[in-house]
Amino acid sequence: MDHIESLKTSTAGDQRALVLEAKDRLTLRDFAMDEPLGPHDVRIAIHTVGICGSDVHYYTHGGIGPFIVNEPMILGHEASGIVTEIGSAVSTLEAGDRVCMEPGIPDPNSRATRLGLYNLDPAVQFWATPPVHGVLRPSVVHPEAFTFKLPDTVSFAAAAMVEPLAVGVHAVTKARAAPGNVAVVVGAGPIGLVTVLAALAGGCAHVIVSDIDDTKLEIARKLGSVSTVNVAREDLAEAVKARTEGWGADVIYECAGSERAIASIFEPLCPGGVVVFVGIPLKPASYDVSAAMLKEARVEHVFRYAHVFPRCIAMLASGSVDVSSLITRTFLFEESVKAFEIAASAPKGEVKMQITMGLDG
Amino acid sequence: MDHIESLKTSTAGDQRALVLEAKDRLTLRDFAMDEPLGPHDVRIAIHTVGICGSDVHYYTHGGIGPFIVNEPMILGHEASGIVTEIGSAVSTLEAGDRVCMEPGIPDPNSRATRLGLYNLDPAVQFWATPPVHGVLRPSVVHPEAFTFKLPDTVSFAAAAMVEPLAVGVHAVTKARAAPGNVAVVVGAGPIGLVTVLAALAGGCAHVIVSDIDDTKLEIARKLGSVSTVNVAREDLAEAVKARTEGWGADVIYECAGSERAIASIFEPLCPGGVVVFVGIPLKPASYDVSAAMLKEARVEHVFRYAHVFPRCIAMLASGSVDVSSLITRTFLFEESVKAFEIAASAPKGEVKMQITMGLDG
Amino acid sequence: MDHIESLKTSTAGDQRALVLEAKDRLTLRDFAMDEPLGPHDVRIAIHTVGICGSDVHYYTHGGIGPFIVNEPMILGHEASGIVTEIGSAVSTLEAGDRVCMEPGIPDPNSRATRLGLYNLDPAVQFWATPPVHGVLRPSVVHPEAFTFKLPDTVSFAAAAMVEPLAVGVHAVTKARAAPGNVAVVVGAGPIGLVTVLAALAGGCAHVIVSDIDDTKLEIARKLGSVSTVNVAREDLAEAVKARTEGWGADVIYECAGSERAIASIFEPLCPGGVVVFVGIPLKPASYDVSAAMLKEARVEHVFRYAHVFPRCIAMLASGSVDVSSLITRTFLFEESVKAFEIAASAPKGEVKMQITMGLDG
Amino acid sequence: MDHIESLKTSTAGDQRALVLEAKDRLTLRDFAMDEPLGPHDVRIAIHTVGICGSDVHYYTHGGIGPFIVNEPMILGHEASGIVTEIGSAVSTLEAGDRVCMEPGIPDPNSRATRLGLYNLDPAVQFWATPPVHGVLRPSVVHPEAFTFKLPDTVSFAAAAMVEPLAVGVHAVTKARAAPGNVAVVVGAGPIGLVTVLAALAGGCAHVIVSDIDDTKLEIARKLGSVSTVNVAREDLAEAVKARTEGWGADVIYECAGSERAIASIFEPLCPGGVVVFVGIPLKPASYDVSAAMLKEARVEHVFRYAHVFPRCIAMLASGSVDVSSLITRTFLFEESVKAFEIAASAPKGEVKMQITMGLDG
Repeated sequence: MDHIESLKTSTAGDQRALVLEAKDRLTLRDFAMDEPLGPHDVRIAIHTVGICGSDVHYYTHGGIGPFIVNEPMILGHEASGIVTEIGSAVSTLEAGDRVCMEPGIPDPNSRATRLGLYNLDPAVQFWATPPVHGVLRPSVVHPEAFTFKLPDTVSFAAAAMVEPLAVGVHAVTKARAAPGNVAVVVGAGPIGLVTVLAALAGGCAHVIVSDIDDTKLEIARKLGSVSTVNVAREDLAEAVKARTEGWGADVIYECAGSERAIASIFEPLCPGGVVVFVGIPLKPASYDVSAAMLKEARVEHVFRYAHVFPRCIAMLASGSVDVSSLITRTFLFEESVKAFEIAASAPKGEVKMQITMGLDG
Repeated sequence: MDHIESLKTSTAGDQRALVLEAKDRLTLRDFAMDEPLGPHDVRIAIHTVGICGSDVHYYTHGGIGPFIVNEPMILGHEASGIVTEIGSAVSTLEAGDRVCMEPGIPDPNSRATRLGLYNLDPAVQFWATPPVHGVLRPSVVHPEAFTFKLPDTVSFAAAAMVEPLAVGVHAVTKARAAPGNVAVVVGAGPIGLVTVLAALAGGCAHVIVSDIDDTKLEIARKLGSVSTVNVAREDLAEAVKARTEGWGADVIYECAGSERAIASIFEPLCPGGVVVFVGIPLKPASYDVSAAMLKEARVEHVFRYAHVFPRCIAMLASGSVDVSSLITRTFLFEESVKAFEIAASAPKGEVKMQITMGLDG
Repeated sequence: MDHIESLKTSTAGDQRALVLEAKDRLTLRDFAMDEPLGPHDVRIAIHTVGICGSDVHYYTHGGIGPFIVNEPMILGHEASGIVTEIGSAVSTLEAGDRVCMEPGIPDPNSRATRLGLYNLDPAVQFWATPPVHGVLRPSVVHPEAFTFKLPDTVSFAAAAMVEPLAVGVHAVTKARAAPGNVAVVVGAGPIGLVTVLAALAGGCAHVIVSDIDDTKLEIARKLGSVSTVNVAREDLAEAVKARTEGWGADVIYECAGSERAIASIFEPLCPGGVVVFVGIPLKPASYDVSAAMLKEARVEHVFRYAHVFPRCIAMLASGSVDVSSLITRTFLFEESVKAFEIAASAPKGEVKMQITMGLDG
Repeated sequence: MDHIESLKTSTAGDQRALVLEAKDRLTLRDFAMDEPLGPHDVRIAIHTVGICGSDVHYYTHGGIGPFIVNEPMILGHEASGIVTEIGSAVSTLEAGDRVCMEPGIPDPNSRATRLGLYNLDPAVQFWATPPVHGVLRPSVVHPEAFTFKLPDTVSFAAAAMVEPLAVGVHAVTKARAAPGNVAVVVGAGPIGLVTVLAALAGGCAHVIVSDIDDTKLEIARKLGSVSTVNVAREDLAEAVKARTEGWGADVIYECAGSERAIASIFEPLCPGGVVVFVGIPLKPASYDVSAAMLKEARVEHVFRYAHVFPRCIAMLASGSVDVSSLITRTFLFEESVKAFEIAASAPKGEVKMQITMGLDG
């Protein structure tokens, strides 16, 4: 029995999934899913799944904004795996290919999708967003167009980081910074850190990271040409101006969703600079239009990502981005419930926790 | 005695200027100014000056934000005139040329100016912004680089509209809309109306203008392919969606500085659309970051204009913009104080009032 | 029997099409096509079809580059019509809708299509490009996504001009010119003229058109703020510099595919200006890299158009573009062969000739 | 006597310069230059000067295009040094500052300069371009605005590389590539190699370098995520497609000025990709407009650089660019003539040769 046959068997035999039954109630249990394979689809044995803040939020709150968990839902959307079966029209993938997957599937006929803005299609089906199941389960059927082959040099663990990394890379793509620019990243959580990596890989000569948590800032400083500002003790605008001869930063990435940060977000910016909103504030924020005008700021807003996965994989393959230091802990699938309990406790020093399904890599 | 000599004499003989002595106190009186002519300067006999809302605001409030009228200051910054004398290094202008002038003079050595962003230079000297005098006076000395020759087909009255028109054209330049786009202009005051003209001339197929004043909306409807929404009675987002098959407008120009409008500014916008902030709100506004994200809105902010005057003049010359319907009343220089009193009363139906200095055109 | 039923009957009863049997041999004859209606398709009764230079070239040469007419092929790809039947998943159109159609259908799964660059998909099926049939026939089945509803104010004749107009509008969209710019259009053939219209509607204050045919230049001058240069007698660069104070034009649209024009295309350009190649030269052209460098020219190349039809229709509806003066002659379907014979004779003074299928408009 | 006094003395005492007397005739001799210090100028003791291909070309050919060496001219324009004296209006520099200098001084009043396009000003005065002297001499007076302070971590040798590096960084800035893109660099000479460094630092995940010289390609491969194609043996387009799943490269930098490369430059490009012309071909090249159209290529042309030096210095300081491996040989000022003789012999394996003036660093 060859490798793929064994994968098919093992995944066929095991139907267990990590199911969020309801708020605060996670079980690892059999959860049968009958997924037919369309002509443009592939079937993938899941290898590694990262735990995202949104997964944890569904667990601890039972919903995010308008998305409420009314039925049991499988969690997980940051995933890599191995193709086990391909649809009749699939041409770029074959069984045995190591892959990672983009978790949102848009309506191919929507106006936004046809424009290339598929992430803005309101009909997008996104893993682990109610009522769509996630992928903490043995296998999934997914469109070829959103499944990306991995070079040998990219591990399954790194590949499961492509999804969060894509958020940072998309933000940097929108910023269109020039090589040698100075960037500020507000917030040193997981999204802030991948944005730091993306900004450095995308051409910034230096990134100034702000947060109120020294542990997080210490992690940020290890990512490259990074300096940090603890805004509990220091003024960000002053610190940025001190480092830029008074001119200000070329790009500011707001990754904290912090209303307080947004209120003065244009202060550290240079004339003609760019602000990218990456973090999602819980409610409308106070925004200083006049301050933005004096600098003729351009402000970009990102929603997930589009057309970014292949570039992320190329960056991991070439070494221009190294995510390994962000993967701070790995659990077996059997330990999934425990992993989420730990994640929900906001453990100091953890950045990205991942779950491995037990396949050979 | 030829025409220029007569201009020199007439302006030399008359030193009267419209002086804002202090808040609420305007006088038309002799006000001697000794302005040496530098090698790159020209001397201009003023012909027509438009009354701007900011002039009126200095008159009625004695200041705008940090700019306080502590000393008597001549008002007026929307101006056209005739060159009477040129500096030794001037090559593009000569005495007798009909011209209009850009009212802000930046420091040529500032970093912003060298980047071409001269409007963002904090050291810019701007007419009728304390402590810099305006041009409601017989003549002014001005740099050649900010003085623009008029074609014969552009009247002095139209030329004195270039300054406010430039605000609209700069906003449209920043928007980088595609030909055939649909735009929304929020606010049908003078800046809103020049933005409507600029948007139409800049390629928009249709502009939807919102305001709460039916008189202003009626003026807007006469400017071209324009429809209007009175937001006291109708919902702007609904109206825009009804006109765009539910897709939304490609560009929204906020020209009212209205905090209420800003709070829901992304609702009428299409996915991937652009919002340009043109109107200056008095204080920070509530801004819906999440709504902007769902559409990946690009937001641009404009501060006055840069490199726009030559294009405005070309548009007036070709007829692609016609500002004549916006000039609703013209006063003689002798009537200046009365003109400002009327302007300060917010007269219904007036858009732009101008003062003519009595030169032959 | 209502209108749509009558359309279905008339088109069902009449199977005649204009068939290019082989080079130089056109017949109007029965040509049965069995076109099933897919869920995302609509069936359209053809109303008006414009004659394009490419149609004529297939007629007179039997092919264009790699595209050879090996089998009888129906001509025509600039078309408007009336929807007679809709597929089960169609939501934006209904029977009776007046429409125009984009003639190229890409593979929705290609990488280019997913990026929004569907015109660059090598697998695109384009009407009247061998082996794909055109639409000089009673009816056609077409995807909803490439069929656009017309406002009442846009005639079928104007709607059949959307296809060539789209080429000009796409070129202007790529140029991203600023409002008030000066453009040059090289070549006053049909594509040059729609580019003039698009450039003016898209914000140019003035367009300088060059050609060697005074008749064509006379037509161009009637389109708006246009001046002309007969390059058989005058130097284009000199003429442009004379009109732009020596600075040069902001945008140059090369619509002639002329190797001679391309050889000196950067001469009339301003520093930092844009050249858009719209006309297709028969073979590689001599290109002055050094001259382009001295101005840091940006050069754009267009291939047909993408995402442009809705904007063209909006421009026709608003009156910002008026194509009526370009439609110089209309034939009945019965006269199709004669119409092509006339078109092939390169008749002086004709711009666009159209064929009407005899439906009520 | 302090350090600066000693610098002043040493440079005052030594008036020797490397003078190109005429074609093929270089002498190191006294060459008095009386350079007054304007209020916005600084005086700089030269420390290190790189030898550029253009310097060598003037030496071996007596001119480049329209620039003919009619009078003795000092060579050298890639320079770093130490400020010894500042003008009365200088505010950002002081004596003792380690600096590098931008060698072109534009007319501050030209239209191009005011737009921020100062490199396109035809009146620019550029070091070692007849009749302007270069800086292989003890000291030079230069405008503050084009003199840039070095961080301690950037050596004088690296700083003298900023000028050639700026060409590459400017090209990458124009390309506006997205992070993770794949680039091709045609030509592995000094400009090709700095473009490789800039492309990698600017966000490209991988660069494919082509040349016909294996020695040069070997140097290129050491610069990072680089693969190479010897086009004497392999087809570039094939090699690029093999590495990009048939899609093509996102950006192609033509750095060879090779007419043969230009003839097929669009073949390795992806749909919607960008070509940047960096190398200057000696005469107009054959250019395949049709091929560019099928991909809707954007083509950018660069002329030197503008606003790039500060970003280059930031990149050197942060380590995102390391030029040290490109500096293959260093000569003392006394050996200047010999250094040029060697440079003129096109020595195998040399990339950048520099001359050090003998100051302490």
